[in-house]
Amino acid sequence: MNFLCVIAYKGTNYCGFQVQKNGLSVCEVFQDALEAVLGERPDVKGCSRTDAGVHAAGFCLNFHSDTRIPPEKLPLALNSRLPEDVRVLSARVVDEAFHARYSAHAKTYRYHILNSQIDSAFGRDYYYRAPGPLDVAAMDAAAKEFVGTHDFMALCSAGSEIAARGDTVRTITDCGVRREGEYVIVTVTADGYLYNMVRILAGTLLEAGQGRRDAQSIAPLLAGRARTAAGPTLPAKGLFLWRVDYPEG
Amino acid sequence: MNFLCVIAYKGTNYCGFQVQKNGLSVCEVFQDALEAVLGERPDVKGCSRTDAGVHAAGFCLNFHSDTRIPPEKLPLALNSRLPEDVRVLSARVVDEAFHARYSAHAKTYRYHILNSQIDSAFGRDYYYRAPGPLDVAAMDAAAKEFVGTHDFMALCSAGSEIAARGDTVRTITDCGVRREGEYVIVTVTADGYLYNMVRILAGTLLEAGQGRRDAQSIAPLLAGRARTAAGPTLPAKGLFLWRVDYPEG
Repeated sequence: MNFLCVIAYKGTNYCGFQVQKNGLSVCEVFQDALEAVLGERPDVKGCSRTDAGVHAAGFCLNFHSDTRIPPEKLPLALNSRLPEDVRVLSARVVDEAFHARYSAHAKTYRYHILNSQIDSAFGRDYYYRAPGPLDVAAMDAAAKEFVGTHDFMALCSAGSEIAARGDTVRTITDCGVRREGEYVIVTVTADGYLYNMVRILAGTLLEAGQGRRDAQSIAPLLAGRARTAAGPTLPAKGLFLWRVDYPEG
Repeated sequence: MNFLCVIAYKGTNYCGFQVQKNGLSVCEVFQDALEAVLGERPDVKGCSRTDAGVHAAGFCLNFHSDTRIPPEKLPLALNSRLPEDVRVLSARVVDEAFHARYSAHAKTYRYHILNSQIDSAFGRDYYYRAPGPLDVAAMDAAAKEFVGTHDFMALCSAGSEIAARGDTVRTITDCGVRREGEYVIVTVTADGYLYNMVRILAGTLLEAGQGRRDAQSIAPLLAGRARTAAGPTLPAKGLFLWRVDYPEG
């Protein structure tokens, strides 16, 4: 049977989701928990790699197993074996052909900016702090210019394999910015992403909020395809993989 | 001059605000920072004691000093000397007679309940987790029964000096419960509190949410003045001193 799990994790202490030679990955601790519960160590397919320090509120993964444990019992069983910063939120059986990455038709990320002169007393792992006034309406107007099917090469960090293949067209179906108290939240939904794309997009919108660019600058930025013309890559710690959408809900 | 500072802190690693023999207090680390910045160690008056593990989003304190540092420079200067889990949000000069505790006419607390089968991956220091369905409307209806001037002896932990003096009448001006995603937030504003009053009040409202008592039970509970008839004292970690109001704003 093919199991789909939705998990949340704090990325601070991990090298990302994907197993890597250097550093502990979320996938590895998830497989450790699977092995403890199932007595086997299935391959795990994640919906995405995520960079070191990036968090996830609704990361999706799948694995195949012949276990007789009913899926609704899996979250409790796995959570008892997982470290505190990784939690299984739900598990269900899906079609054999389902693949957490290839079956996804949209992924939503959020980038959290703390707009304050002062850091939070309640931990610094979940935001990038931008002091000084931010024009959130200008950020949102610039965000809307990213919506659509575009070549996003300008929002792709150098050295990416995808970029080298020239495969840099993606479709953003939603992109917006809103204020929640002292936080400014960037939300973006797309069918796929280039390397560091959301962090560069957030950095570009931040420049719009600071009055350093406007919404009219976005179309030429994309047309120019030059990474150097976009904003900075904001730090991983402000980024959350928020939700993954599959055709059958 | 008399300085009023608004500070936020994560209470997890402190024995509370007040200086105590056993354990590090927020007041002590604040005085350490004052001494480093001002070259003197003034007495500091807090708006409240808080228990070990209780957090604060808008705690108020005052101290007297002849420093020539302008108040608007104090947050940055003090924050550079404070541990990460204590932040000065603002500072201003107030009337010589102002006292953070005695001048307060209202204090607002929030109690955060995570209503989920599963803990948060993003840290467990900021909520009490209640699994199972919660009827938030029933909680809010019960909360409204606490509003007014009442003898709150039933919501006071044993062994308190105030209770021994029989000084247990307080005025709650606002009390309510609402859902924010998976969180259920209890908010209460009063002119003063008895020992553990908010944590017992939250525990009593939790029972209402679980269908174990109703709004009609609150008036007899207060009239009976018996701690044993109220709900449990919920853990400190879910409690936040949220705001303090003074007559001149």
